[in-house]
Amino acid sequence: MSQKALMEEVKSWIEEAATQVKEKLKGQVFVEEKSNRHDLVTNVDKETEAFLVEKIRTHYPDDQILGEEGLGDTLESTDGRIWIIDPIDGTLNFVKQQENFCIMIGIFENNEPVLGFIYNVIKDEFAYGGADTGVFLNGEVLPPVPNLGLRDGLIGTNSTMFAKDILNTQKIGSEAVGVRIFGCAGLDFLSVLRGKQVAYLSNLSPWDFAAGVALGKPLGLVHSKLNGEAYDILGERQYFVVATKKAYEDMFNL
Amino acid sequence: MSQKALMEEVKSWIEEAATQVKEKLKGQVFVEEKSNRHDLVTNVDKETEAFLVEKIRTHYPDDQILGEEGLGDTLESTDGRIWIIDPIDGTLNFVKQQENFCIMIGIFENNEPVLGFIYNVIKDEFAYGGADTGVFLNGEVLPPVPNLGLRDGLIGTNSTMFAKDILNTQKIGSEAVGVRIFGCAGLDFLSVLRGKQVAYLSNLSPWDFAAGVALGKPLGLVHSKLNGEAYDILGERQYFVVATKKAYEDMFNL
Repeated sequence: MSQKALMEEVKSWIEEAATQVKEKLKGQVFVEEKSNRHDLVTNVDKETEAFLVEKIRTHYPDDQILGEEGLGDTLESTDGRIWIIDPIDGTLNFVKQQENFCIMIGIFENNEPVLGFIYNVIKDEFAYGGADTGVFLNGEVLPPVPNLGLRDGLIGTNSTMFAKDILNTQKIGSEAVGVRIFGCAGLDFLSVLRGKQVAYLSNLSPWDFAAGVALGKPLGLVHSKLNGEAYDILGERQYFVVATKKAYEDMFNL
Repeated sequence: MSQKALMEEVKSWIEEAATQVKEKLKGQVFVEEKSNRHDLVTNVDKETEAFLVEKIRTHYPDDQILGEEGLGDTLESTDGRIWIIDPIDGTLNFVKQQENFCIMIGIFENNEPVLGFIYNVIKDEFAYGGADTGVFLNGEVLPPVPNLGLRDGLIGTNSTMFAKDILNTQKIGSEAVGVRIFGCAGLDFLSVLRGKQVAYLSNLSPWDFAAGVALGKPLGLVHSKLNGEAYDILGERQYFVVATKKAYEDMFNL
């Protein structure tokens, strides 16, 4: 199967999942605390992951799955094809705003990103594709991201890193033209992919960045841990950065 | 003329202005720095203010006008009717994202808010109305805002206050369920009006909060300076808060 055909297939699954999520938002959503009161999970997170995992298991039974809600596998190696799923990215926004959340899937082969999918559900803003297929936004080809420097753009980050000034985040923010906090990694990746931000710095798990990396690499963006080391798709939460090449260099030369 | 008729008239002006702004975004926008490189102004800010000021001068020549771009009057008293205009609220977003900006007008009579208008232009999300008319969002009546406490909701703020922890902003943010930074007062007011945030804390000029106050007061929201004193529509930038009653009390009892 070509990457193009795989892209179309997964795109249709995510569109189906998004339709279900919109429908469920009209009814009652059941919310639980995960690690603490700032970290929520709902029945919709779990049901959406179950829906996507079932599709993958049925069509690609030999593949490995890493899912935020734990319905995937316990991975020990990056060999072969791995699907990395965030069924509802931005659950706090989902619960409190009923918008500003995304469904995300990243597909890696032998530790290389091959396809990414980020669907901003309520806005119907859907980015998908990869190095082989090209990257699309709602059917239109996304061009390479303009290579702007840090001083010429907005950046996104998360509130804890910014408040506590972790890894120089405040200084990076002052150098940028402005700082935004959306509370949803998918929204920030979409913003960087579309040239509306020059960088996004956050503390992310693999399911928060896998889709973004697969979409951003073909468009010229740089991705790494915020200390400059390679990101780790089997790792725990890690301080992560995606940026234009220039903004990335500027950030390390402050 | 009834407040209802005035509301409909101003609504139609703002819709006309929004159509012009969308059209101008397709062409070239001319950007200048105002006070510093984080504070921009464009030809669209100026032209939109000119359009709205001309409408007011023609139809209500005896009224006073306060406009962000300086085309209004120099006010010395809150007597009579005052129109307070932010032609493009969130100019940085307008320039860098081409979305997430608002057109706002607040109308005060003898220092009391009577009508407010906030139009999130690209999303076509338009809140308008006041105490006499009721408050509407795209034609639907907006109900009173649910009176949630600080721990039960998100808050919005601005990046400088949050980074520098001005007036306890970081502690207020930790008590809330999460912190968002949109870079556009209008978006934050819309979010609080719709019950998607319980508070918004920022450093605002009168044109940043006048519309929000007129819309929020009839829905049960509280507005003041962040030190608890009354806000000042003739004043300079002031640390300002809008919140549900409960979140407001929680904030002052931390």
